[in-house]
Amino acid sequence: MPTLTAQALRLHPDRLLPSAPEVRSIARRLYDEVRDLPILSPHGHVEAQLLLDDRPFPDPTTLLVTPDHYVTRLLHASGVPLERLGVGQGPLSPDAARSAWRLLCEHWDVYRGTPVRYWLESTLVDVFGVALRPSAATADDLFDTVRDRLAEPGFRPRALFDRFRIEVLATTDDPADDLAAHAALRDDPTFTGRVVPTFRPDRYLEAGRPQWARDVLHLGAVAGVDTGSYAGWVAAMEDRRAWFRAHGGVSTDHSHEDVGTEPLDASDAERLYSAALAGVATPSGTTALRRHMLLEMARMATEDGLTMTLHPGVRRGHHGPTAARFGPDTGHDLPLPGAFTDALRPLLDRFGTHPNLRLVLFTLDESVFSRELAPLAGFYPSVYVGAPWWFLDAPDAIRRWRSAVTETAGLSRTSGFIDDTRALCSIPARHDMARRLDAGYLAGLVADHRLDEDEAAEAVVDLVRGRPREVFGL
Amino acid sequence: MPTLTAQALRLHPDRLLPSAPEVRSIARRLYDEVRDLPILSPHGHVEAQLLLDDRPFPDPTTLLVTPDHYVTRLLHASGVPLERLGVGQGPLSPDAARSAWRLLCEHWDVYRGTPVRYWLESTLVDVFGVALRPSAATADDLFDTVRDRLAEPGFRPRALFDRFRIEVLATTDDPADDLAAHAALRDDPTFTGRVVPTFRPDRYLEAGRPQWARDVLHLGAVAGVDTGSYAGWVAAMEDRRAWFRAHGGVSTDHSHEDVGTEPLDASDAERLYSAALAGVATPSGTTALRRHMLLEMARMATEDGLTMTLHPGVRRGHHGPTAARFGPDTGHDLPLPGAFTDALRPLLDRFGTHPNLRLVLFTLDESVFSRELAPLAGFYPSVYVGAPWWFLDAPDAIRRWRSAVTETAGLSRTSGFIDDTRALCSIPARHDMARRLDAGYLAGLVADHRLDEDEAAEAVVDLVRGRPREVFGL
Amino acid sequence: MPTLTAQALRLHPDRLLPSAPEVRSIARRLYDEVRDLPILSPHGHVEAQLLLDDRPFPDPTTLLVTPDHYVTRLLHASGVPLERLGVGQGPLSPDAARSAWRLLCEHWDVYRGTPVRYWLESTLVDVFGVALRPSAATADDLFDTVRDRLAEPGFRPRALFDRFRIEVLATTDDPADDLAAHAALRDDPTFTGRVVPTFRPDRYLEAGRPQWARDVLHLGAVAGVDTGSYAGWVAAMEDRRAWFRAHGGVSTDHSHEDVGTEPLDASDAERLYSAALAGVATPSGTTALRRHMLLEMARMATEDGLTMTLHPGVRRGHHGPTAARFGPDTGHDLPLPGAFTDALRPLLDRFGTHPNLRLVLFTLDESVFSRELAPLAGFYPSVYVGAPWWFLDAPDAIRRWRSAVTETAGLSRTSGFIDDTRALCSIPARHDMARRLDAGYLAGLVADHRLDEDEAAEAVVDLVRGRPREVFGL
Repeated sequence: MPTLTAQALRLHPDRLLPSAPEVRSIARRLYDEVRDLPILSPHGHVEAQLLLDDRPFPDPTTLLVTPDHYVTRLLHASGVPLERLGVGQGPLSPDAARSAWRLLCEHWDVYRGTPVRYWLESTLVDVFGVALRPSAATADDLFDTVRDRLAEPGFRPRALFDRFRIEVLATTDDPADDLAAHAALRDDPTFTGRVVPTFRPDRYLEAGRPQWARDVLHLGAVAGVDTGSYAGWVAAMEDRRAWFRAHGGVSTDHSHEDVGTEPLDASDAERLYSAALAGVATPSGTTALRRHMLLEMARMATEDGLTMTLHPGVRRGHHGPTAARFGPDTGHDLPLPGAFTDALRPLLDRFGTHPNLRLVLFTLDESVFSRELAPLAGFYPSVYVGAPWWFLDAPDAIRRWRSAVTETAGLSRTSGFIDDTRALCSIPARHDMARRLDAGYLAGLVADHRLDEDEAAEAVVDLVRGRPREVFGL
Repeated sequence: MPTLTAQALRLHPDRLLPSAPEVRSIARRLYDEVRDLPILSPHGHVEAQLLLDDRPFPDPTTLLVTPDHYVTRLLHASGVPLERLGVGQGPLSPDAARSAWRLLCEHWDVYRGTPVRYWLESTLVDVFGVALRPSAATADDLFDTVRDRLAEPGFRPRALFDRFRIEVLATTDDPADDLAAHAALRDDPTFTGRVVPTFRPDRYLEAGRPQWARDVLHLGAVAGVDTGSYAGWVAAMEDRRAWFRAHGGVSTDHSHEDVGTEPLDASDAERLYSAALAGVATPSGTTALRRHMLLEMARMATEDGLTMTLHPGVRRGHHGPTAARFGPDTGHDLPLPGAFTDALRPLLDRFGTHPNLRLVLFTLDESVFSRELAPLAGFYPSVYVGAPWWFLDAPDAIRRWRSAVTETAGLSRTSGFIDDTRALCSIPARHDMARRLDAGYLAGLVADHRLDEDEAAEAVVDLVRGRPREVFGL
Repeated sequence: MPTLTAQALRLHPDRLLPSAPEVRSIARRLYDEVRDLPILSPHGHVEAQLLLDDRPFPDPTTLLVTPDHYVTRLLHASGVPLERLGVGQGPLSPDAARSAWRLLCEHWDVYRGTPVRYWLESTLVDVFGVALRPSAATADDLFDTVRDRLAEPGFRPRALFDRFRIEVLATTDDPADDLAAHAALRDDPTFTGRVVPTFRPDRYLEAGRPQWARDVLHLGAVAGVDTGSYAGWVAAMEDRRAWFRAHGGVSTDHSHEDVGTEPLDASDAERLYSAALAGVATPSGTTALRRHMLLEMARMATEDGLTMTLHPGVRRGHHGPTAARFGPDTGHDLPLPGAFTDALRPLLDRFGTHPNLRLVLFTLDESVFSRELAPLAGFYPSVYVGAPWWFLDAPDAIRRWRSAVTETAGLSRTSGFIDDTRALCSIPARHDMARRLDAGYLAGLVADHRLDEDEAAEAVVDLVRGRPREVFGL
């Protein structure tokens, strides 16, 4: 066991490839087919404004720690209060940033075996050229090095965007957003990347939310439509979807507690909508309305061709006191059991074979992969199995996912890799991870004598290039 | 990576065996113990009439594509309408057959990594001696070759039956079936195979079905019993079970939405039965009746010794328009979550330790294997864990199944391999796949130093020969 | 394949380590770091009285077969009635003991691939020096050899305790227990081991049990508190917890059907408690009361610092006739689906970030590991993922568990190994199994280039020594 060099941080060229020599050599060849392909990122949370402004990132903590709930949640579990990591506090002072960075480095061991470790190591080495393992002893050095790099022109958002070879980047946006940043980017002759908006209407479908009535009236104002009736809500949505399409949008995203799509009679929909606007709807009423609205969204998708992605089954803001103090997306959104077969039946009965519909299903409940998602995607031409999401976007989980899905749905009914991240610097590491794992998975099929290597080579390229293009109409 | 030979279709002798050399060599030895053993197929959907008639199969499409929903569903998902595959259309014209075959070959890539690919490749190479990978370029050649082979005497059903070394083949039959084909086969001195019927009474237990009343009256007529009362229904069932036993039947099969077995009072059963006959039963009433009837079936099993297999948890005909146009078994039956512990408790409380009962539990929900099925089979002498079924009858899923089940229930509490297929030609490939995977699994235990190789050798033979004989009383 | 030596029983030095040579060599080095560390057993079912009395075990059957439902359940499934194994019959005659032992040996094959086989083989070889594989032919020899060993002083409970290098052993005890055995052991200058009680109050929380009212009144008598009111119940619990703490207790254990923790208003709690005492509570009322009481237990834990372990989701005594004849813990407790995210929310909302709370979550439903337990433990500083429990305490399941949990919760949010056994002789084999598997898992991360070997070496030691110390405050 090495001792001195143990403090070094290196990325092994064979990382995540199968360790058995006979399989690894196949995997290396397959990985070589895709390692340098450009990145297609059809769903994520980097903001267009970041690329429009192209300002330097202020410090390593603000870039890599504070906004990333993958990072902060495990520190929190290890006894570090979120306030010491700068969560929910606006811009950090240099001292606060350094102090939070030290906490990360001192707790480096808690990330052993996690993808957070993998992404951060890749970022430090590949993006910032740092070759030192984080620890209490190295924290300040690392902070200074990365901070200094961030001040260089080559580390501004657009420079990184180019360096990462991002061909398409999708943002996630509110339907009421005017998409000015997207328009400005598109019109900026100095920026050649493709940044497309994603229509994320969740809040307008959740009539049980306290601010819902205000929100839908605002949406109506933006769309120039009276949303005082359900018909108006529908018209406003159609108007805003068209706006997103006109700004390059290729998909809509939906994340509700369940994927129920039971329709309402037209009159019931109007009645429930009115009750919700008046603040007198029951919880079961607003749930019924939301399911009907989700079905309505699918109908619109068959008309305008926007791909529909579903990310259901999360209990948001599980810890009330943390939600109250630090706001949403602070590490305590927690998975619920998944259920798709019956919940999606009304939608699929109507639109499942519609040539315009593309529906990508994600889950945080692994038992659903072989039981429901693969069987659905293996029959309905509109349905694709989404790549492993959130807690499942990690090497072992991705391996389990391919194993669970392929035998029923093959490779072509999956979505291609989705990074779903707000951490710009982690994008290349995430896509590279997926490519390595797919190469390893396919090498396993070859070693199993279930697939010839020429077909595996074609398949690994299709997963990187063909799937996202087809599924998101890129 | 080979290029020219890539178009060749070959079956590697080590396919599906562990790729690590030290484990593979053990697996090879274990596989050698079972590779040539005769096939026991105690549950499936090949029809007795096929063997009685022994007519040549008309063409490759009618044999391998149209009736096999494993094959057609993934083509359908890939945008091929079912009508272009001949589904639901009766005999195919030569042109239609060739055209559907071409669609299969053109979409060969969508089957990468699926067992459909594995079975079809095995069938083409091992059964038909074809060594060419399907593709748009080779489709016509393949079609002609297979079609010509099918005209030869050696490719008629009985010849294949003999060549496949099928020792026992179970069919699946309606309780009202007179089993004339089975009787004729048994009495035919030119056919020496053993073809046994399986009693599948589902439709008579689902009193919510529109045709149920008509069906039970017809069953009564066949049995010579008045099924106007629940007692009559019971008598008719007992009569028909006896008829099946007399014709060689060894098991009954049951596939309902759940495996509830809650008993009813005798008077409630009669009352609900009468209401159902009168067409005035509620959904909850017909469900309660079905659960009571399933318990009644278990009681009969303790008396007549027919093995009882349960295949629950499927939403049949998920896509209404496809069901309406193409009928049942057309690729959109979809799995539901499984639940056995509480649902089976009434049955097991009464009959779980009855020396005559053998109950084989199947599921499409993998989370159930380690949570419920293995724990049940590891205590109740009547319970066996059924082999992976339907979407789970594939290499990775079978490996997961052995891993999930063995540690709690051992090897002896599993059913032995069940092919459950209507595709005669796939039977040897399916059984061979299971033998390879079991050899690999046991080799893993040996390599792990959890089992000595002499015991593994005994076990692998027992899985092929001992388990089906014990579980199905063959 | 060896033939003569096949009858020998040997423990391979590399058992359970990865079979691939490159990974195995890493795993060997990691295993060497922990193989000889003392055993910390913070949860189990060996009784303090056994060590206090230090009497010789009477015979192999009474030691290894009759009381161990892991062993008897699979024999029962294989057709051996429990009465022939001595279950529920008090002391066994020499003939009965020998006869039951023979049944075990004759059915040795049914344990192939199970951890029972692994534990028994380890016990026979490592504890008793037996090197003969059990079978009908060797049963009597084995019985005689082990029986003779048991008569030697070196095989009495305390001698084994020392030889096994058990540093801490936790028992499981009723709140009304006076803990006299623990006190006597502590005061015994000839015994230097640390044996601590565990507070297991389940029966006092289940107001639907027939004996509940009598039990809580008895508890009140023991505590010197009037438990005629809910406030009295709370005071009695607090009193008894303090008693356990004073006797070295470090944790409380809770095993109910679910982990619901919904609070009641104070008045509702009193009302439901009174109704239950009066025998007029409804099932929903006693369930609501139990959930409120479990929340109350968590509140107490934040005050007295006792670690709280939850083992939910078991249908106890599934087979009524066996329960009636042979009593509890006779092999037919069966798992139910798990659900933690919503059920624990009230508890975690109140106490999830309390610095004094340590909450260890166990499950028999593997789908919960990646979906709920790891995400919870990866945010809440109070929550740890418990080691695989009961049916999941086996090599493949433990591997799946680490794979499912680590990527979200890392290594530090897991509990350390828990043997949870009443079989004293199996304790070293169980802990050794866990150490081997953790070494293998970490070696896999190293071979995957996800972790440097120096960190893996630190981690494997932390799992054996650091985790139980932190989680149970040892």
